[in-house]
Amino acid sequence: MSYMRIIERIKEMEDISRKVKNKGKKVGLVPTMGALHEGHFRLIDVAKKHTDFVVVSIFVNPLQFGVSEDLRAYPRDVHNDAKLLKKKGIDILFAPLGNEMYPEGYDAYVELPMLSSVLCGARRPGHFKGVCTVVCKLFNIVIPDIAVFGEKDAQQLIIIKKMVKDLNLGIKILTAPTTRESDGVAISSRNIYLSSQERRDAPVIYQSLILAKKLIEKGERDTKKIKEKMRVIISSKLTARVDYMDIVKKKDLKQISFLESEVLIAVAVWFGKTRLIDNITLQIPEI
Amino acid sequence: MSYMRIIERIKEMEDISRKVKNKGKKVGLVPTMGALHEGHFRLIDVAKKHTDFVVVSIFVNPLQFGVSEDLRAYPRDVHNDAKLLKKKGIDILFAPLGNEMYPEGYDAYVELPMLSSVLCGARRPGHFKGVCTVVCKLFNIVIPDIAVFGEKDAQQLIIIKKMVKDLNLGIKILTAPTTRESDGVAISSRNIYLSSQERRDAPVIYQSLILAKKLIEKGERDTKKIKEKMRVIISSKLTARVDYMDIVKKKDLKQISFLESEVLIAVAVWFGKTRLIDNITLQIPEI
Repeated sequence: MSYMRIIERIKEMEDISRKVKNKGKKVGLVPTMGALHEGHFRLIDVAKKHTDFVVVSIFVNPLQFGVSEDLRAYPRDVHNDAKLLKKKGIDILFAPLGNEMYPEGYDAYVELPMLSSVLCGARRPGHFKGVCTVVCKLFNIVIPDIAVFGEKDAQQLIIIKKMVKDLNLGIKILTAPTTRESDGVAISSRNIYLSSQERRDAPVIYQSLILAKKLIEKGERDTKKIKEKMRVIISSKLTARVDYMDIVKKKDLKQISFLESEVLIAVAVWFGKTRLIDNITLQIPEI
Repeated sequence: MSYMRIIERIKEMEDISRKVKNKGKKVGLVPTMGALHEGHFRLIDVAKKHTDFVVVSIFVNPLQFGVSEDLRAYPRDVHNDAKLLKKKGIDILFAPLGNEMYPEGYDAYVELPMLSSVLCGARRPGHFKGVCTVVCKLFNIVIPDIAVFGEKDAQQLIIIKKMVKDLNLGIKILTAPTTRESDGVAISSRNIYLSSQERRDAPVIYQSLILAKKLIEKGERDTKKIKEKMRVIISSKLTARVDYMDIVKKKDLKQISFLESEVLIAVAVWFGKTRLIDNITLQIPEI
């Protein structure tokens, strides 16, 4: 089993990365906010498969939480996360300090205004600006050849890929599919917030996505009709309240009324104070 | 004399930089918008002194021009610039294509909202967002160890340094002092716009800065009084119209009424349709 180091200081992380890369090794980065679960481990597996040196970052990024959001409540257990990562055999756990990431007078932000104006971005103003800024910083500190993001956060993944392309970051973005519980619920650090009743109702999100997929397979191309049926099934659960439900082109996240080419079906549902998201992407066959 | 290559394609530039760096050479970048003059050559001298491989970029960045500004009229003569650069003995002239820098659907921007809200930034909305975005892109493409910027664009220099620090870009920013004509006029690509009368009046900008310096040396610390006297001298020229005249802390560009520590005195003056800027920085001695 390899020896995992825990690095807190940015300067130290930069020095290590530069050394490792000078030896000709490929560096992989898996950025996380901790509270690690099976979904994260799938990302780490991808990083391990494609690189020689795997860095997992844990940083609960204040910049991506809205003022009314769950920054304070967000689950943190670095001690347990470190134990789990050690078992996974990664090289570095990078857990930077908040006041090193955003010192007093901090003033630099990265933003993708078009792609951030829809779906989760429309409901969480500033969220993707915070995500892009922190990911850009982590990329510059760790200088990875490859970084891995999960497909569960579909809009985030699309925005990060676009940021890398538009800002010429020269990093390859790899992905891993959403990891699910046996009842279909997408694994998320936020699932622990759910009451037992909410948890029992939560599979309805994925069920609505599967319903959409079946309707499309049967030839339905009218997004309005598909969304209506998705809404009916989600609304059948008393604890569920739809935040949004959208069918968009995967390429530019623009709304479509008639399905074609590659589409993203994305759903956000409130269960009490907990907001869960899920999505599927589909290649629409020509009829 | 070394052999200069002209590179237009981003991918080719990236490949060359990576190769050069893999050989252990230090790369220096001097970003310009062309229309090269003595001021640029001083920047190139700094880059040559501190690195083994000098890239000069020429790109008239549409993103940093306002809709009513001089993007179309901005002087362009890449052929002559290339001749001059060849004589200077640089390694690469990187002149990327507009549609490769900003392809259709481009959506990524870098911004420093606080430092961009004053001085030139207050008068040219979006200007520094355009500057930061293109410089960030150029940094990611050329991956320089060192980049050189002129002190004439004082706010730009301060913003770039802050961007490098805040986004952890790991690039050393070096500077060169403002190059001046014998009558004190700061050399700028925009000076060619001036009518002969405007050119005769233009030295008044630097004269106002020298006046401020002398007043401060004599013990004046009240910025209002200093600015009043600067305004009087500039207004004595019929073709000159003050755009702004500010005395700010160099650290954070905040206005001050009583001088202390390191200050930036920055002036922008319209001569007809031409806007010229100049500045000095001063370390205020304790009285």
